[in-house]
Amino acid sequence: MTKKFQLVGIGNALVDVLTHAPDSFLAEHGIEKGIMQLIDREQAVRLYDRVGPSTEMSGGSAANTIAGFARLGGRAAYVGKVKDDQLGAIFAHDLRAQGAVYETPLAPADTEAETGRCIVLVTPDGERSMNTYLGVTEHLAPSDIDEAQVADAEWIFLEGYRFDGPESHEAFARAIAACKGAGGRVAITLSDPFCISRHRDAFARMLKEDVDLLFANRAEIEAMYEGAGSFEAALEAAAAEVEIVIATESEHGCHVLAEGRRWHVPAVPTRVVDATGAGDLFAGAFLWGLVEGHDLETCARMGNIAASEVISHLGARVEADLKALFRQHGVLPLPGGAEESKEG
Amino acid sequence: MTKKFQLVGIGNALVDVLTHAPDSFLAEHGIEKGIMQLIDREQAVRLYDRVGPSTEMSGGSAANTIAGFARLGGRAAYVGKVKDDQLGAIFAHDLRAQGAVYETPLAPADTEAETGRCIVLVTPDGERSMNTYLGVTEHLAPSDIDEAQVADAEWIFLEGYRFDGPESHEAFARAIAACKGAGGRVAITLSDPFCISRHRDAFARMLKEDVDLLFANRAEIEAMYEGAGSFEAALEAAAAEVEIVIATESEHGCHVLAEGRRWHVPAVPTRVVDATGAGDLFAGAFLWGLVEGHDLETCARMGNIAASEVISHLGARVEADLKALFRQHGVLPLPGGAEESKEG
Repeated sequence: MTKKFQLVGIGNALVDVLTHAPDSFLAEHGIEKGIMQLIDREQAVRLYDRVGPSTEMSGGSAANTIAGFARLGGRAAYVGKVKDDQLGAIFAHDLRAQGAVYETPLAPADTEAETGRCIVLVTPDGERSMNTYLGVTEHLAPSDIDEAQVADAEWIFLEGYRFDGPESHEAFARAIAACKGAGGRVAITLSDPFCISRHRDAFARMLKEDVDLLFANRAEIEAMYEGAGSFEAALEAAAAEVEIVIATESEHGCHVLAEGRRWHVPAVPTRVVDATGAGDLFAGAFLWGLVEGHDLETCARMGNIAASEVISHLGARVEADLKALFRQHGVLPLPGGAEESKEG
Repeated sequence: MTKKFQLVGIGNALVDVLTHAPDSFLAEHGIEKGIMQLIDREQAVRLYDRVGPSTEMSGGSAANTIAGFARLGGRAAYVGKVKDDQLGAIFAHDLRAQGAVYETPLAPADTEAETGRCIVLVTPDGERSMNTYLGVTEHLAPSDIDEAQVADAEWIFLEGYRFDGPESHEAFARAIAACKGAGGRVAITLSDPFCISRHRDAFARMLKEDVDLLFANRAEIEAMYEGAGSFEAALEAAAAEVEIVIATESEHGCHVLAEGRRWHVPAVPTRVVDATGAGDLFAGAFLWGLVEGHDLETCARMGNIAASEVISHLGARVEADLKALFRQHGVLPLPGGAEESKEG
């Protein structure tokens, strides 16, 4: 039977506050480049006071993945908590506008915490340093997981960042049980080396017992399998536990390990404006390829193309017509002339 | 005595909700291209439901002008009403982050109306069609005008859009009286032909009695002086009433009429991505040139350069270093090598 959803993503619902900042600003404020650090509300207010004029766009790692997947035409839903406030309305609108289902219960308007936000400092090299005030998304609870929804998903996609938060592990467990119980499969992204060190045991158990597909970048997979001693050994260790392992390496492309085999797929060169969302869109396009029945190498090529699109502009949501890009790169067949000209 | 402010702007405080839309979307929803139309809250909700993923950035015509002026280093303040809500905080932050003073009393958090917003539909040709829900900015009242502040301004800059709203004319009158009473001068932008037709008599009286500097585009000055019968005659009619008249003509540059003379200053060619803010930034840069003592032709060249910058990207606030652009175009002298390399 066809499931209602091809993909349900669970993650931290965040609005990104994007601003350009010189490297000296990072140094002054003790912000380490290229990573995500959690900040509390007071720190968020203080930092926001000091940054320049900003642009607000919906973000959140898994939400970016789901937005890309839905934009490709995939049947997707997203689970992540916002408040009944203006930023919450913006977040919900942008997911729905991409065609994704978003029905997570809202935190009421009188909750003290607000919709989460991520102050993204984009330095001239295109690197982004993320300062996240989780707000209400920190409190996504098992009761926010609709078991019928995740049971009706071919895949669920879990965001590593979502391991932070008091009830997050229980919420994931509930989603995994409902999904796998109905024959669904589980994909995860490790999200961040520091997040791994905060929740190493939970990640390890989940990788061994539940995960069918792992997304990680080089630093993350090395942090996760630190005992392995090298990137190569970490890849092998992951592949011994997880059916499909994808390790991305920025401009060096990505490695796919599955079925006892291994592929390397080169990146699609582009001018980096803002690296935000590269991994998220890689995952969204890869998973879309997968549910549409493409082979793993083609899925990885789709992932690289999508990542290259999203880093060529400010913001973590895809802007171009990805299917058209896939055709240009020869990973999707060119349709008849009439349909092609309609897309343009 | 040096005044505290070189420029105080009064306008509608709005957060722009920017989204790309095909021409067919405009046709479907009966939206006329390139103009601003006022919508109520219900219409705003309905339209927002239908547009695609969006980006939120501070906007508001006079606020864009003030942001550009402040970014150039001018001493500026802005008067325009937001609510004590998330969009209001974003609006206030972005002005202050540019170095502008923003102290307008907030509408309280329990006011029914919200911070105003403008849903900007950007079509593939770069034209923008603006759908404005004024919210609390509609109710800027005379009591929101700090007479001491406007008296301490060399110039005040009035936004034509601000003629809409029950107490707007009284608020403008109070600001003009306080400013002129202290030897200050008054600049105005006509903003929009439809706005002119809604408030023709008030505009006419103000131009005759109070205004020292008029900004208008071709359609606006033709609408204002419709009796004149032609663009040329409208320019002459305006110049007979107002000391300095600036009429912008998009890619055809601008006309300056003053001291019985007339100049034409060609536009700076660029690829148009989003025309939002062109007139606003023209005014901001022109006024900065003026208060810094440059001749009118140089001011107009600065205005054209700033307009060309802001239409080359999405959003109505300037992103580049305008002074550096002025130097590249030879309208500001190149400083010594050391200082120049610091700016880069």
